[in-house]
Amino acid sequence: MPTALPLLGVLGGMGPAATLDFLAKLQDLSNALRDQDHRPVVTFSASATPDRTAAILGRGESPLPAMQAALMALERAGVSHVAIPCNTAHYWFDDLQAGTGVRLIHIVEATMQDLDLRFDAVATVGLIATTGVVRSGIYHQRLEVSGRRVLTPPDQAAVMGVIDTIKSGRMAEALPRLAQQVRDLRDAGAEAVILGCTELPLCLSHLPAALQALCVDATEALARASLQALAESDAAFAEGVGA
Amino acid sequence: MPTALPLLGVLGGMGPAATLDFLAKLQDLSNALRDQDHRPVVTFSASATPDRTAAILGRGESPLPAMQAALMALERAGVSHVAIPCNTAHYWFDDLQAGTGVRLIHIVEATMQDLDLRFDAVATVGLIATTGVVRSGIYHQRLEVSGRRVLTPPDQAAVMGVIDTIKSGRMAEALPRLAQQVRDLRDAGAEAVILGCTELPLCLSHLPAALQALCVDATEALARASLQALAESDAAFAEGVGA
Repeated sequence: MPTALPLLGVLGGMGPAATLDFLAKLQDLSNALRDQDHRPVVTFSASATPDRTAAILGRGESPLPAMQAALMALERAGVSHVAIPCNTAHYWFDDLQAGTGVRLIHIVEATMQDLDLRFDAVATVGLIATTGVVRSGIYHQRLEVSGRRVLTPPDQAAVMGVIDTIKSGRMAEALPRLAQQVRDLRDAGAEAVILGCTELPLCLSHLPAALQALCVDATEALARASLQALAESDAAFAEGVGA
Repeated sequence: MPTALPLLGVLGGMGPAATLDFLAKLQDLSNALRDQDHRPVVTFSASATPDRTAAILGRGESPLPAMQAALMALERAGVSHVAIPCNTAHYWFDDLQAGTGVRLIHIVEATMQDLDLRFDAVATVGLIATTGVVRSGIYHQRLEVSGRRVLTPPDQAAVMGVIDTIKSGRMAEALPRLAQQVRDLRDAGAEAVILGCTELPLCLSHLPAALQALCVDATEALARASLQALAESDAAFAEGVGA
């Protein structure tokens, strides 16, 4: 039985702008009229964390120690739940969860939930994500187990180019390239396209409306799942207090 | 001599959108090309903190205990410095600083620095801020000690109306009213106008250019002063390691 009200932690900074996008989506989903209507949140923007894709490809040091240190700092600050607005970081999800008593919220599970809510019986799903996410199979496993086919852009280096361009703040340059990748996946048969890297939704509202309608935003899915997990803990807390 | 690299804490959530604006300005001022070029930051969005202006006017409970609790959580997370992107909260600055070993960065001092940098020998300064800030005199004291005259809008209730409208997310409605307040202060003789509530700069980039040029953004000033304080601590740390 929980002994305190739930408090959301965010293991962020991967990258920093994507973390602000996540926090803004949390705020938007709260429909608040005044400060006190919002959820308190503690965010560690651990931007010095080593590159996740480089580590998965065996070309760079593991980000796990840096993420574990940030997670411990969040625990000391008193959080009960932690969201990680970086898809690639979820390669280490089980290691992170094993080392902490706080509940981690899984971005891929959240995205599956949004995909099912928004699209009825989709057979072919596009996935635009880092090379680390694609190689690790964290989306493929969950999509293929339910019999769905996964399409990724043929030029994965071009996807990483878009992501790095967004990370460096050159949105206008990234936008037409991302739009073309979504369009190509649609033309190849994708009925929905998962933006499975939290940098990509930074461009989402600037995509043509027809392409936007195809996209599933992993960042927004994580924000929705986080509020849902907190609401469930609120209820458990209220039940505990009432008992 | 510092024994660890500096880590910025943010006592935020007053309000939540203003805190994201502060974090975005920190990121913009960092000119980063990749995640690892950004400063790590720990942010407590303590949005449940009681209303600051109501407390100063004797009409609501003190926000001090909630702010102290959030500050202690940030300390436990390991921060060395703390910025508070809420002008009105600075009424309790000395109380907060007295209870902590971390260095607090003062938003009004930061704004004075930006005012002096951007405007040469200004005799009359406009101030748009909460009734709490105006009554407490935290800006007036610092401006008048240097012989400057302070002008505030005659209808302070209208200023609070603009602030509350922004807090409820109705930016388009707030914008023309804020523009008129800046224009009126200019017409009354203000050579610069301090946006001394962190909600107001959320509208700044949408104001007419001639009005924007008059405004001093307290949020951006705090972001600049925070990066400056961290850089000074980096230098002290490097000197300590080298000694």
